[in-house]
Amino acid sequence: MARYCFLGHVDPANLEEYRARHAEVWPELLVALRDADWRNYSLFLRPDGLLIGYAESDDLDAAQRRVAETAVNARWQAEMARLFGTEGAPDEAWEFVPEVFNLEVQLERAGEAVLSVR
Amino acid sequence: MARYCFLGHVDPANLEEYRARHAEVWPELLVALRDADWRNYSLFLRPDGLLIGYAESDDLDAAQRRVAETAVNARWQAEMARLFGTEGAPDEAWEFVPEVFNLEVQLERAGEAVLSVR
Repeated sequence: MARYCFLGHVDPANLEEYRARHAEVWPELLVALRDADWRNYSLFLRPDGLLIGYAESDDLDAAQRRVAETAVNARWQAEMARLFGTEGAPDEAWEFVPEVFNLEVQLERAGEAVLSVR
Repeated sequence: MARYCFLGHVDPANLEEYRARHAEVWPELLVALRDADWRNYSLFLRPDGLLIGYAESDDLDAAQRRVAETAVNARWQAEMARLFGTEGAPDEAWEFVPEVFNLEVQLERAGEAVLSVR
């Protein structure tokens, strides 16, 4: 399992609509993401429109290809595209940011218990 | 448990040193973070110095107060401070970004299994 961080840009004029839509994502899309191996997927939105994604997957490229093949994802991305400040499908414009630290990985490497023993 | 995203700014002149130091964080600090209830804590670094943190905790404010009380954190922050583009202790200058979506939370709410049943 690997951890991924990626950035996008929501048009600042559309922040409220973006929040409202993402507070109630279609269950069919949630299931498609889950079955494509998107795990622990969160989105964070800064008031200027910077959108930060975090997800875990064995291979997020492969997971993204699988979800991109679903009809529900095509419908969702088409509805979301106009909320973004970028061209094309929002999920094809992610900027990935490399990981430089993970607590649990380094605890394991150091021979320490990953969970607190307090 | 809640999920948190926060931003900082590493001085672009110090990216290599920042990466090298965070590839081998002191085990004593790893344990202090774990015992303060920092969980699944990752850092991601963009080539322009934008630093993105992700962590899980029951209460990250409380977790941060606990780790800030440790001598090892004070030593670490003092060594890291000059790598950042901001004044003061880096861990006191985080900009938190609100979560707008989590896959598992919405799967549960929709009555769907959180793990794939494929």
